[in-house]
Amino acid sequence: MSRQAPFEDLVSFRRDLHRHPEPAWREFYTTARIVDELETRDLDALYVGPEILAADERMAVPDDDSLDEWYERARAAGAREDILERLAGGFTGAAAVLERGDGPTIGLRVDIDALPITESGEDDHVPASEGFRSENEGFMHACGHDAHATIGLGVLDAVAASDFEGTFKLFFQPSEEMIAGGNAVAKGGLLDDVDYLLALHVGLDHPTGEIVCGVDGFLAVSHFRAEFTGAPAHAGAKPEEGNNANLAAATATQNLYGISRHSDGATRVNVGVMGGGTATNIVAEESFIEGEVRGETTELMEYMEERAHTVIESAATMHDCTVDISVEGKAPSARSDDALKTIVGDVSAGVEGVESILESDDLGGSEDATYLMQHVQDHGGLAAYVGVGTDHPGGHHTRTFDVDEETIRIAIDVIAGSIDRIAGEQP
Amino acid sequence: MSRQAPFEDLVSFRRDLHRHPEPAWREFYTTARIVDELETRDLDALYVGPEILAADERMAVPDDDSLDEWYERARAAGAREDILERLAGGFTGAAAVLERGDGPTIGLRVDIDALPITESGEDDHVPASEGFRSENEGFMHACGHDAHATIGLGVLDAVAASDFEGTFKLFFQPSEEMIAGGNAVAKGGLLDDVDYLLALHVGLDHPTGEIVCGVDGFLAVSHFRAEFTGAPAHAGAKPEEGNNANLAAATATQNLYGISRHSDGATRVNVGVMGGGTATNIVAEESFIEGEVRGETTELMEYMEERAHTVIESAATMHDCTVDISVEGKAPSARSDDALKTIVGDVSAGVEGVESILESDDLGGSEDATYLMQHVQDHGGLAAYVGVGTDHPGGHHTRTFDVDEETIRIAIDVIAGSIDRIAGEQP
Amino acid sequence: MSRQAPFEDLVSFRRDLHRHPEPAWREFYTTARIVDELETRDLDALYVGPEILAADERMAVPDDDSLDEWYERARAAGAREDILERLAGGFTGAAAVLERGDGPTIGLRVDIDALPITESGEDDHVPASEGFRSENEGFMHACGHDAHATIGLGVLDAVAASDFEGTFKLFFQPSEEMIAGGNAVAKGGLLDDVDYLLALHVGLDHPTGEIVCGVDGFLAVSHFRAEFTGAPAHAGAKPEEGNNANLAAATATQNLYGISRHSDGATRVNVGVMGGGTATNIVAEESFIEGEVRGETTELMEYMEERAHTVIESAATMHDCTVDISVEGKAPSARSDDALKTIVGDVSAGVEGVESILESDDLGGSEDATYLMQHVQDHGGLAAYVGVGTDHPGGHHTRTFDVDEETIRIAIDVIAGSIDRIAGEQP
Amino acid sequence: MSRQAPFEDLVSFRRDLHRHPEPAWREFYTTARIVDELETRDLDALYVGPEILAADERMAVPDDDSLDEWYERARAAGAREDILERLAGGFTGAAAVLERGDGPTIGLRVDIDALPITESGEDDHVPASEGFRSENEGFMHACGHDAHATIGLGVLDAVAASDFEGTFKLFFQPSEEMIAGGNAVAKGGLLDDVDYLLALHVGLDHPTGEIVCGVDGFLAVSHFRAEFTGAPAHAGAKPEEGNNANLAAATATQNLYGISRHSDGATRVNVGVMGGGTATNIVAEESFIEGEVRGETTELMEYMEERAHTVIESAATMHDCTVDISVEGKAPSARSDDALKTIVGDVSAGVEGVESILESDDLGGSEDATYLMQHVQDHGGLAAYVGVGTDHPGGHHTRTFDVDEETIRIAIDVIAGSIDRIAGEQP
Repeated sequence: MSRQAPFEDLVSFRRDLHRHPEPAWREFYTTARIVDELETRDLDALYVGPEILAADERMAVPDDDSLDEWYERARAAGAREDILERLAGGFTGAAAVLERGDGPTIGLRVDIDALPITESGEDDHVPASEGFRSENEGFMHACGHDAHATIGLGVLDAVAASDFEGTFKLFFQPSEEMIAGGNAVAKGGLLDDVDYLLALHVGLDHPTGEIVCGVDGFLAVSHFRAEFTGAPAHAGAKPEEGNNANLAAATATQNLYGISRHSDGATRVNVGVMGGGTATNIVAEESFIEGEVRGETTELMEYMEERAHTVIESAATMHDCTVDISVEGKAPSARSDDALKTIVGDVSAGVEGVESILESDDLGGSEDATYLMQHVQDHGGLAAYVGVGTDHPGGHHTRTFDVDEETIRIAIDVIAGSIDRIAGEQP
Repeated sequence: MSRQAPFEDLVSFRRDLHRHPEPAWREFYTTARIVDELETRDLDALYVGPEILAADERMAVPDDDSLDEWYERARAAGAREDILERLAGGFTGAAAVLERGDGPTIGLRVDIDALPITESGEDDHVPASEGFRSENEGFMHACGHDAHATIGLGVLDAVAASDFEGTFKLFFQPSEEMIAGGNAVAKGGLLDDVDYLLALHVGLDHPTGEIVCGVDGFLAVSHFRAEFTGAPAHAGAKPEEGNNANLAAATATQNLYGISRHSDGATRVNVGVMGGGTATNIVAEESFIEGEVRGETTELMEYMEERAHTVIESAATMHDCTVDISVEGKAPSARSDDALKTIVGDVSAGVEGVESILESDDLGGSEDATYLMQHVQDHGGLAAYVGVGTDHPGGHHTRTFDVDEETIRIAIDVIAGSIDRIAGEQP
Repeated sequence: MSRQAPFEDLVSFRRDLHRHPEPAWREFYTTARIVDELETRDLDALYVGPEILAADERMAVPDDDSLDEWYERARAAGAREDILERLAGGFTGAAAVLERGDGPTIGLRVDIDALPITESGEDDHVPASEGFRSENEGFMHACGHDAHATIGLGVLDAVAASDFEGTFKLFFQPSEEMIAGGNAVAKGGLLDDVDYLLALHVGLDHPTGEIVCGVDGFLAVSHFRAEFTGAPAHAGAKPEEGNNANLAAATATQNLYGISRHSDGATRVNVGVMGGGTATNIVAEESFIEGEVRGETTELMEYMEERAHTVIESAATMHDCTVDISVEGKAPSARSDDALKTIVGDVSAGVEGVESILESDDLGGSEDATYLMQHVQDHGGLAAYVGVGTDHPGGHHTRTFDVDEETIRIAIDVIAGSIDRIAGEQP
Repeated sequence: MSRQAPFEDLVSFRRDLHRHPEPAWREFYTTARIVDELETRDLDALYVGPEILAADERMAVPDDDSLDEWYERARAAGAREDILERLAGGFTGAAAVLERGDGPTIGLRVDIDALPITESGEDDHVPASEGFRSENEGFMHACGHDAHATIGLGVLDAVAASDFEGTFKLFFQPSEEMIAGGNAVAKGGLLDDVDYLLALHVGLDHPTGEIVCGVDGFLAVSHFRAEFTGAPAHAGAKPEEGNNANLAAATATQNLYGISRHSDGATRVNVGVMGGGTATNIVAEESFIEGEVRGETTELMEYMEERAHTVIESAATMHDCTVDISVEGKAPSARSDDALKTIVGDVSAGVEGVESILESDDLGGSEDATYLMQHVQDHGGLAAYVGVGTDHPGGHHTRTFDVDEETIRIAIDVIAGSIDRIAGEQP
């Protein structure tokens, strides 16, 4: 692939990423492959891994064993060693900058990580029948981030080839699925001078040819992990000597769901994963719960988070246990700005293949692009999260999810066109 | 080793078993090694695996993968293939019979399985320093069943060499740690004509040289596993579509501990292990709890069991889940008969190395030797569970547990002597 | 007071009702007083008590002792015996009909019951300083229903005196505070031919001079009472013989709050009152919880109600208790129709004293006027719930609540004017 | 009645007390009646109310309204005013002392309070048919304390008439049913020099003619009341502003029953009474639970008490409430001394009407005579709690309980005889 890559090159790039899905903070092959491509372009700046991240804001960083395993796997798959070395410790992701004269600074954020889902091997699943099914068994690009990264590259080429005046910053953000990477990029420094930010997502139950100018309805979210520590005891001989970590976890779980609803808007709570104990006849010394709270606004999420911590800590105290609560991922709420929605809508109307344009739609879930959007908006800028429909046979996060590759072309045209128009209009 | 093995042969036998600890129903190497030894003796009958077990009464039988893995491991460790084949499917254990003229039928039951505990490698741990530490990493004879099997062999030799008149049946019972094998042996047929039964345990916090003539205070116990099935849902987008298996498990756990105390005696309840769910943002579709109930009497255990099942089923219903409850292990209560205690005490008084004799002591835990004891007592026979003290550096079920091998000799003398005396006195 | 009562007569009427506050289904004095007034008017029909109610739809009817007590109290306060007799059994409320030629049938619903709150006796509380404080100690018109009934009478007079053409039906509904009377009036028959319905409320945190043309945001609600019955036992001597009704109630309460949030909108749950047991040393035989569930839509309320019943029943089963669940009050959600809002707004603009007009506002609570609104809308009619601001010193349902009596005049003008206009425009 | 009262006088005395049952700390009539009788005897000392009590150790003292009501009721029933005045504030009870030369000090404790139970009015209930049914409707001597007080008086007369040498102290203890008076008498000073203490109870499921020489198996007990305070809120409009006291109480209740069983012996826990909240649509501001913990030993009770307080406090914290825990009654465990059992047994063998003598039996419940027994034993003395069988038609604490009055005679003979023998033998 070279500058202003032909569409078939973009498709093979996407399929290469699809064959090598990597989970959060372990996007070694993916980042190396992206940087390798970026180096063939005429860029004004190229930032790799730690250069785009606020190290302290990274959340849910996996342990060294897991990082090492995926690092080796990337090397074995042919990733360039010189790039890999720059990503050591799980500092993945990259950013590219084009400076094209006077004008505003416009950012585009795409995400690059995959999911711990085993991809379908059925004949009617295109990646399987076309030979680009996941080679990392048990992991899969089941949310289209392979397409996102590819669209980013296509937009870069299109902006470079256009009359755009201003500065264009393209962010390849790691660890979105864990909502663990957004804040590290938002606080990484490179976003500070961005005047307008776009982010995008394919699919979201919209068909190929449909554009959502600005997605709203992001639920602010916080992931937590609580580890309870009690004291073990033989459940038959000395039950009173145990401080029961399983009972503490059960009490916490019961009461977390009972946190009061809030009149200011929607909230959510879930204990998604729980575990504890070692044997039926031992009072459990250790247990854990992993869960999340959400809110229609950031304030509502924080209300839930504060109440959740009180509940968890009291459940530990109640059963003479201690507890360690860590935040494993977090994202605020955000709204797409109307002025950008209008531009995206206007541009989309002129893009071939666009058949339906929605001004707005609710996500109903969470995304840590909101950290970047909020950062730009807090500095007086504008931001929008654009939905680009794609015919996806299976739902998001299922083993038969796939992207209609025509979407890649439409997305590049819509986003690159919008960037050009934003630079001109400076709304 | 050959008939009437010298003590050093018994010690090496014990150490060989110690090097090859195997968990419940997977005592392939252990059984093969025992049978190999038994075949060198002049026996009147030798029963292997399925020949001693009531197949339907086996509990907590592991899945085929696990059985296969340990079968192969036993073969790789040098177990005789012709014996292994007779144990296929996890039908482990063996029994030997001596017929020595007219007289009562006297049984001895020893157990042979090990625990999922990683053995200490420290220098002050004798098996480590003497070179017979576990070769099955993660598993360990941490409750002395290697010594029990060895004592069984020694008693067999001693009885064979004595003036004993009657029939002696020696049972090598599998799967005691899971209290999953006792009922299968009790109902296996071979016990039906046993008039007197002895069982034994080393240690139990008694030092070398101390004998407990008859252990009592066995808590009847029942192990359960409850698997809850609900419906998954995205916890942010569609929480109401979930039927929350984690919440059902938490509710069950909370309420299990709340089962009323009973005025007839001590009861116990424990949820030792719990787990559920797949991701923080998914309402858990599946969860499980593993636990146990106990009672000072079998009736009290059954009271707890019945209440526990009601609680678990109601917790499932409450959260629109279903639940599958299985009993994974079970043992009744039992008492050692006074007449046998008296004989054991009298014999012990004449055994070299015995320094302290206790008539009785409470186990405070559970044991499925009680199934065999109860079976014999229900048929009009007598039974006793003999404690043979041993200086054990670490507690039972800990990684530094070990047996003072002098105990093996004392136990053989006490048990063989008692068998001889019982045959003579027929109390 | 006589036909087309002067304002001062209306004020004394309101103050008389204020002095005699009566709780749900026990509005004997209030109804008698209203009927006495209505009989002085030239009506085409007058319905009393059972004539306006579907007997089977009355909810939360108090026991005979309470009905008798308030009946006697009303008699003692001077209520007309001939009217009281028609209200026997707690069939309170009344309706008046004016037929004024061809035209649509237009209804107005006002409510008449009071609350179990002790009224302030402080000098700065006008009813106290002006001498019309509650004479039924412990009960109080703390939500303005005394003003509502008075406004109803004023509107009747105004409509009678106007050029109105059509039929006007005025409903004095009992038992709104318990949301227990609305459905009985809605299904009582008199509403079946109503084409347009207005209801009204004073205050709601809006000042005198402010009109809300159509209140929305009614939460559908259902009140429940669950009575658990177990078995008593001496908690020390025979705890296992108890079936613990207190524990069942506690389990139900815990799990009711844990009913999943719903992605379709706001829900609520509350266990407002609980009680159980007789002595510390007795396992409780009986307990109860009283609570409510709400939903932003009727469907959401029904989702909560169904889940709540499952939770309550499972909690009883879990603890070997039985439970009897009764619905003690209920109201659907509803929306004010835009066409009526527009008319109310236009009319209000011409009413003296109106300084601010809001098209709409959310109630955020519940009201059983929604039963009547829904009944009319289901038959193809239109309905609106009008808010008439009043300067109220204390909040609704507090002991210092009071109504600015100027509001009565404004409300009569706005409502009577709107009725006249609706009859003319027939939107 | 006068010194050495004939049996018929004792019967009428008992029936008079039976007609005037009074609850804990409100035994005004009862105490006055006892003191009136004592004053007719030739005593060496007579102590009334506050003179026998450690004021700070009184537990569960009722509020002034209740004290006043029962004080007035006693006056109205004819109690002597001069005595009543000495009991003001609920300082009830009395003690009498006989000094009869050199010898040990021997105490007898009887209790005098009644229960909040409505007495049967059926013809087959002797107090009803014989005309001495309770005149304090809703209260009843349903545990035989009327007989206990009478036996005390009879023993006093018998000791006075005997050859007894030593000091005899007779304690009429108030407030046993609430286990709230024992410690106040134990610490009141008069017990400090007692060498031997007897206490007694009629019935306990033993028939007339059966004597239990020394009751054991007292469960130590502690009664608690926990009052939770949160913050109220409208459950529909602002649920998040509530701190839910009902939910705190439910969480506490759930988890109290889950306190771990103890291997040292029997424990108990019960939440006997609960209540909270004011309306279905208000988040409850206040709630309470009343309950108890027990233990086979005082240490076990204290283990339960400590865990209970942790659970209750954590439940409050969990739901942002505060809690106030008070101990409302308490009694330690105790054992009857063998030496006294022997004497009681020997004496009983010679008493007319005694047909069966049990050395010991377990109470299985709690009693605060244990405070007095423990006090004496801690000072080096001996104590025993004697059971005197009586044919009681209904169970203790039921509305048909009654005492076979022949028991009074037997009890006097057994107890007075034992006192005489103890003084002689000084075991």
